[in-house]
Amino acid sequence: MTDQTLAQRAINTIRFLAIDAVNQAESGHPGLPMGAAPMAYVLWTKFLRHNPRNPHWFNRDRFILSAGHGSMLLYSLLHLTGYEEMTMEQLKNFRQWGSNTAGHPENFLAEGIEVSTGPLGQGFANGVGMAIAERYLAARFNRPGHEIIDHHTYAICSDGDLMEGISAEAASLAAHLRLGKLIYLYDDNSITIDGSTTRSFTEDAPARFEAYGWHVQKIDGMDVGQVEAALRAAHDDERPSLIAARTVIGYGSPGRAGTAKVHGEPLGADEAKATRANLGWPEETFYVPGEVLEHYRSAVEQGEQLEADWEAHWEIYYDEYPELAEELRRMIAEELPEGWDEALPTYEVGSKADATRNYGGAAMNAIAPHLPELIGGSADLTGSTKTLLKDMGDFQHPTHGGSYEGRNLYFGVREHGMGGILTGMYLHGALLPYGATFLIFSDYMRGSIRLAALSHVHAIYVMTHDSIGLGEDGPTHQSIEQLPSLRAIPNLDVIRPADGNETSAAWRVAVAHRGGPVLMALSRQNLPVLEGSKEKSWEGVDRGGYILSDCEGEPQVLLIASGSEVQHCVGAQSLLAKQSIRARVISMPSLDRFLRQEDDYRDAVLPPTVRARVAVEAAAPQSWYQVVGLDGTVIGMERFGASAPAEILMEQFGFTAENVSTEAQKLL
Amino acid sequence: MTDQTLAQRAINTIRFLAIDAVNQAESGHPGLPMGAAPMAYVLWTKFLRHNPRNPHWFNRDRFILSAGHGSMLLYSLLHLTGYEEMTMEQLKNFRQWGSNTAGHPENFLAEGIEVSTGPLGQGFANGVGMAIAERYLAARFNRPGHEIIDHHTYAICSDGDLMEGISAEAASLAAHLRLGKLIYLYDDNSITIDGSTTRSFTEDAPARFEAYGWHVQKIDGMDVGQVEAALRAAHDDERPSLIAARTVIGYGSPGRAGTAKVHGEPLGADEAKATRANLGWPEETFYVPGEVLEHYRSAVEQGEQLEADWEAHWEIYYDEYPELAEELRRMIAEELPEGWDEALPTYEVGSKADATRNYGGAAMNAIAPHLPELIGGSADLTGSTKTLLKDMGDFQHPTHGGSYEGRNLYFGVREHGMGGILTGMYLHGALLPYGATFLIFSDYMRGSIRLAALSHVHAIYVMTHDSIGLGEDGPTHQSIEQLPSLRAIPNLDVIRPADGNETSAAWRVAVAHRGGPVLMALSRQNLPVLEGSKEKSWEGVDRGGYILSDCEGEPQVLLIASGSEVQHCVGAQSLLAKQSIRARVISMPSLDRFLRQEDDYRDAVLPPTVRARVAVEAAAPQSWYQVVGLDGTVIGMERFGASAPAEILMEQFGFTAENVSTEAQKLL
Repeated sequence: MTDQTLAQRAINTIRFLAIDAVNQAESGHPGLPMGAAPMAYVLWTKFLRHNPRNPHWFNRDRFILSAGHGSMLLYSLLHLTGYEEMTMEQLKNFRQWGSNTAGHPENFLAEGIEVSTGPLGQGFANGVGMAIAERYLAARFNRPGHEIIDHHTYAICSDGDLMEGISAEAASLAAHLRLGKLIYLYDDNSITIDGSTTRSFTEDAPARFEAYGWHVQKIDGMDVGQVEAALRAAHDDERPSLIAARTVIGYGSPGRAGTAKVHGEPLGADEAKATRANLGWPEETFYVPGEVLEHYRSAVEQGEQLEADWEAHWEIYYDEYPELAEELRRMIAEELPEGWDEALPTYEVGSKADATRNYGGAAMNAIAPHLPELIGGSADLTGSTKTLLKDMGDFQHPTHGGSYEGRNLYFGVREHGMGGILTGMYLHGALLPYGATFLIFSDYMRGSIRLAALSHVHAIYVMTHDSIGLGEDGPTHQSIEQLPSLRAIPNLDVIRPADGNETSAAWRVAVAHRGGPVLMALSRQNLPVLEGSKEKSWEGVDRGGYILSDCEGEPQVLLIASGSEVQHCVGAQSLLAKQSIRARVISMPSLDRFLRQEDDYRDAVLPPTVRARVAVEAAAPQSWYQVVGLDGTVIGMERFGASAPAEILMEQFGFTAENVSTEAQKLL
Repeated sequence: MTDQTLAQRAINTIRFLAIDAVNQAESGHPGLPMGAAPMAYVLWTKFLRHNPRNPHWFNRDRFILSAGHGSMLLYSLLHLTGYEEMTMEQLKNFRQWGSNTAGHPENFLAEGIEVSTGPLGQGFANGVGMAIAERYLAARFNRPGHEIIDHHTYAICSDGDLMEGISAEAASLAAHLRLGKLIYLYDDNSITIDGSTTRSFTEDAPARFEAYGWHVQKIDGMDVGQVEAALRAAHDDERPSLIAARTVIGYGSPGRAGTAKVHGEPLGADEAKATRANLGWPEETFYVPGEVLEHYRSAVEQGEQLEADWEAHWEIYYDEYPELAEELRRMIAEELPEGWDEALPTYEVGSKADATRNYGGAAMNAIAPHLPELIGGSADLTGSTKTLLKDMGDFQHPTHGGSYEGRNLYFGVREHGMGGILTGMYLHGALLPYGATFLIFSDYMRGSIRLAALSHVHAIYVMTHDSIGLGEDGPTHQSIEQLPSLRAIPNLDVIRPADGNETSAAWRVAVAHRGGPVLMALSRQNLPVLEGSKEKSWEGVDRGGYILSDCEGEPQVLLIASGSEVQHCVGAQSLLAKQSIRARVISMPSLDRFLRQEDDYRDAVLPPTVRARVAVEAAAPQSWYQVVGLDGTVIGMERFGASAPAEILMEQFGFTAENVSTEAQKLL
């Protein structure tokens, strides 16, 4: 080892930490860290501006390991550069219960992990979101001589990342937006789990990225000089950069380098020993040479200096632009400004019926002036989803007729990319991103929605055209299973408001929520303002469900619905009253939130003794059996929809007051 | 109109049928048919080999309108060329209840509609699947001088199709596989719903396709001569072809041509009138000039001749290769050969525990020799999902070391593309395609899974690593909400077998099923062979649920589980018996199938009087409330998982016999 340069030893340290941790866990992916260690070393020691002692320093560069299966690469770097939560003990507990060194990196487990990765392509899209966030905040807050927000976003991506459609979507948009501070190292190792990339991936990926409009360089990724030169050139280019770096997966392993086997299997004791011999590394496991640690740990002092310099600058900025600075501080802290929700509209019974998508647009636009952190757009359905922030400008490079200060993003027909980008925008910090499409296309972005929920991302998904009520577009566009499917995602709140008042309340809840995403399901069709919603929905939506309209005395039957079907429960209540049947109408815009309420509240709304319960929702019925049990009934959709005008569909499928009344009577 | 050529009149006929139908429905998308009519005209009159009088003629060319919102283009072509189900009456009932002219084309509504489209990108991927099917069948069945299978697959795609990630995935694979008989017309009209493509789509799409390895031509799509020349050149090239055809959306409308407004809104009476004036078209709505109809209807005679020629050839082939011919006939008819399932393995209690993914691999390989229609692969997880068909070769172009006769497809890390391709393979006919990945990544392909279910596609999804039981890879890879979410999709059967016998039975059910897809959820971890499964699971899995182990006398409590959790119910039954509690164990591999059984059977399995019910599944609990009601309990996962060895996770989250027993006792 003595004849190795410090750089070589520093690189081999990463390799063997990965080898040893994976061996110890008897599970994991040693191949990527072994091949990508040189480029990671160059990036982290010569370029990455971060402060291990304050992983939250706001102007740090962001680093994403999109190829999350190589998690030991990231954990090793965090440990070596001095992130205090990433102790050697944690490395030794790789993939064990209670450790922060999970199989794939999770942002909520340890500081310094910017995003949760593993499902391929997500990190790629997250990075684009971070670069968008950086440009937006820079445009909004920087002033001449005050580059308060000014950092790069880096990622290491794999072949798998580049094969996934989500990365294709995000890459095209990144180039369109000319996100020049986005720099991706592509670990081009020609190996996937199934073997050589010649099995399925023979396109010219660099040429593809050039076609998107990226700055593309092809280098030998095992040569630190080439990596450094490429990163410098990437810094100098105004386009997003892809550095296609040829590497050898499992580099150094005499028996497994360049094979699929080393991708996802421990080397085992014998091959680890052979690799040690081959690379001239001591027998000691988890060995970190003192001078290597010292070398990496210089990041601590450098990082503290970087942040101190920035802090000094921030103080001057704070003096010169106190309002801007205070606004940025507030946004970073995720505090809401006083009175932010006061302009939310409310509606009187008897006012003109309107679609909840329109009410949603009105609510957004009422709060947007108070919340510069609210930025987003749609997957090419801005007009249909009513999600344009009026007079807020388009987020575009000037060559496309906008500025980075604009708050309306145009994602294109790229739902999955949009989902991943929203996650990146939130995890960058200081933003509350939203994204809109039709509810049916939540399917296209589920991979990113669930990862947002796992990662505690506060994003808002505005999903309109939420049922067969969209009418003529037909079953390919009509949500059936989406509502129950989304409710099943842990830590995601689904809200489906019934009228204008509930929609305003839903937006209030969605913005004030913390710790996870909120998805709103809004109607295409007009819905009347319901009696009682103005008074009750402010608290009612927050609690997820509430008694919208009660009968006199103990109810005989409970009528429970969300969204556009609540009106039919109200109608059924009247029909039943004519037959002296006492029915209670419960509006349940968010089953997720309702089920989190204390027992007393839930029992007050749904008295345990009343077993005659009808749930009504133009969706697959699955969610509602938890509420109606074996003695109740669900009026839902057990099949796909059809193409016809909305009113006809609603009637054909039983979403009428008459049918609700009939079903209720069957239970008595 | 008299000075228009026949071609111009034929093209304008399509335009005005679309304008009139959309106006009449007051809903729909006129812009695409108006702009794409010239290329559709050239394709359908000069190239497409089909027989309107027999839309099922097997060797027909396939045509896909990937941009399904332009459905009136397809309906018009079907009507004009003589598809009998597509009457003028249907065109006039566009988007109405009970018509076959739905908002977006649905393959099961009218003959001649090859696939259901609308959600963008799906049709693009379906076409790749059809081209794969054609190549496989040709390789398997054609003999020198007998090109029994020999046709093209065409599609018209839009900007939106090309923005979606699924098309990027499918395009890369199509080039890798060198599917030269795949020819796509790209309706490059620079307009999306949100406006100009300069808002979000400024990449060089033709260059991108060249990077994939496609043959790319750029033409003026309004010039029929250029369209014809490009289609001829595409025929002559060995790569898949993209013809990027510049068109004008809403061509002919003086007020709306080239605008986003014409994409998805009716022209209205005034603009329709102005368009008529502009293009010199009579006032009469739904007008089809006699000579235009005659011109298009020549497709009938030509088609009958094409099929007759093919039939004559088929007779000779049938004589010369009776076994091959009979096999192809059987596959097209979706008949299963006698004894196909006899080799499915069964397992004795006490034999070595194994993962259901391994049992699944054994089952597949037992039936594969009898079923040449079974062809598929995985999204780069062939080894992990155990879905390699041994000794069946790789489906590859010879330059990549295989042949089109091979039955193992390598989809790459492209789950969504895989889903769309499987659908295309099935809808081509004669194949039973399967696709494999981890259950968590069913999220990535949900858009295509639901469309397969809607379209009555018999595909088999093999989803392994089906719970926290996968262990160390952690929460990004552990399914939680996927099982209930998939069960919520209408017409999709989810089967999660508990041991080797149930897995063999599941494969039997999956192959014999008709009318929709089947998804199997299989374990990574080993599961013991259960007492009784060998005798009962053959029928039990078919029925979705059955009494695996009963108590003596009337049960006091029902223990219901699927997959890896059934063993803990068996264990709990013993623990409860020690306390003289009578428990029945119900294995419920497919809730979907069980709920379709007659009441008598369901009540026999789940006696209505027994309300103490415990459902156990390492997944979000939502599905099971329909079974356990308000008086039972579900042991499920209300949160995301964690990274640790599987046994530790199962214990930590309560999936043990002890915990099942404890929860059961709480109910008594």
